[in-house]
Amino acid sequence: MPNPTAAMLVIGDEILSGRTRDSNMHHLARRLTDHGIRLTEARVVADDHGAIIAAVNDLRARHDHVFTSGGIGPTHDDITAEAIAAAFATPITQRADAMALLQAHYDRAGLPFNEARQRMARIPDGATLIENPISTAPGFTLGNVHVMAGVPNIFEAMFEGILPTLTGGAPLLSQSLRVNRGEGEIAAEFGALAAEFPDLSMGSYPFNTNGVYGTNLVIRGTDPGRIDAAMTRLAALFP
Amino acid sequence: MPNPTAAMLVIGDEILSGRTRDSNMHHLARRLTDHGIRLTEARVVADDHGAIIAAVNDLRARHDHVFTSGGIGPTHDDITAEAIAAAFATPITQRADAMALLQAHYDRAGLPFNEARQRMARIPDGATLIENPISTAPGFTLGNVHVMAGVPNIFEAMFEGILPTLTGGAPLLSQSLRVNRGEGEIAAEFGALAAEFPDLSMGSYPFNTNGVYGTNLVIRGTDPGRIDAAMTRLAALFP
Repeated sequence: MPNPTAAMLVIGDEILSGRTRDSNMHHLARRLTDHGIRLTEARVVADDHGAIIAAVNDLRARHDHVFTSGGIGPTHDDITAEAIAAAFATPITQRADAMALLQAHYDRAGLPFNEARQRMARIPDGATLIENPISTAPGFTLGNVHVMAGVPNIFEAMFEGILPTLTGGAPLLSQSLRVNRGEGEIAAEFGALAAEFPDLSMGSYPFNTNGVYGTNLVIRGTDPGRIDAAMTRLAALFP
Repeated sequence: MPNPTAAMLVIGDEILSGRTRDSNMHHLARRLTDHGIRLTEARVVADDHGAIIAAVNDLRARHDHVFTSGGIGPTHDDITAEAIAAAFATPITQRADAMALLQAHYDRAGLPFNEARQRMARIPDGATLIENPISTAPGFTLGNVHVMAGVPNIFEAMFEGILPTLTGGAPLLSQSLRVNRGEGEIAAEFGALAAEFPDLSMGSYPFNTNGVYGTNLVIRGTDPGRIDAAMTRLAALFP
């Protein structure tokens, strides 16, 4: 059975202006790979209603899962929940369960549960809440779209909460061999080996560390026996 | 005059598998912002012919510039140049000028200019070469698409080479104010201020550093006088 596929949608002007460096994509890529879900595409869009809708609708039609990060806070530039509702053409309201969670949180903190904070209870109809163990304000899953916070530790905690609910596939395994030769030197033999193992994916990644040039050769797949067989051949080619 | 817009396309399985963390997008975002070009979208796709073609054609139709990174080396998984040529429906051949550059480079290094290395001279018809001062193998510009290497120091060097040829706009300026209050506390007043300055973009970014919660408020725009006026108001709101 083929592995499920996923796309990531990072939402936020601060990434595109270079003010902030996204780290959620890399984290998600690693965790999904461990879980046997293939991340095949990622996008970053601005805090723009139309851009979010277009990206979500394109991605959710082509992937088993879409994960979003960013734009679910209380300020005027947090427009993700409204845009997701619009993408699904579904109403969005302050939902009682989300209101109750947030009310209790701000009561405990002795802070007013004001209008801005109440915005974080706006959830599209039909969505399931995603728990936020860090700061309470929930994410949500609507259809195959999982909407999470942009702050990395909250994104990561939310993701761990939904991971057990996602159907994974065979773990996506990889092995690599580091060779002290340039890519141009190993390309012919490496390419021929890749052609012999069409069920595996082989990639080469040049590096230059402290003036030493070389290449990391990576073999990916789901069948450990096939990967071992290819690695044995690779080690013989480039001892 | 509005600022030109740009999109970035990162090409490579190694980013999506989580093996490698992309840094070119963040670098490009910062440099374009300095130059007055607005990066409004970024994507990561796999080493997949169809995925590269679809992304390039979508992005080049909607942006003044598209910058790609990755997939222009000598190995079988380097398929970017062929995919770009296919996206433009233009032939691709080993071009004499690129062949001469590479031949001289490998002659100097005392290395064979073999078939794999000759693949790096494959350039779509009508493209302009982008100089690679690090390892010679050139990138290229075809139409509004700038095709560059994925290795960060080479990507950065190539980009600096083409930057003077790109028409920028008014510099995209930003100022920020750090407040020791949560987003929910400042949201109403900050949102009202943003509504008063529709020509500026205002964003709020929560942080939690060593247990201290707070928010960075960022104002972006191209008119320094307007940004100063908004910052004065912001400082008065949150002294």
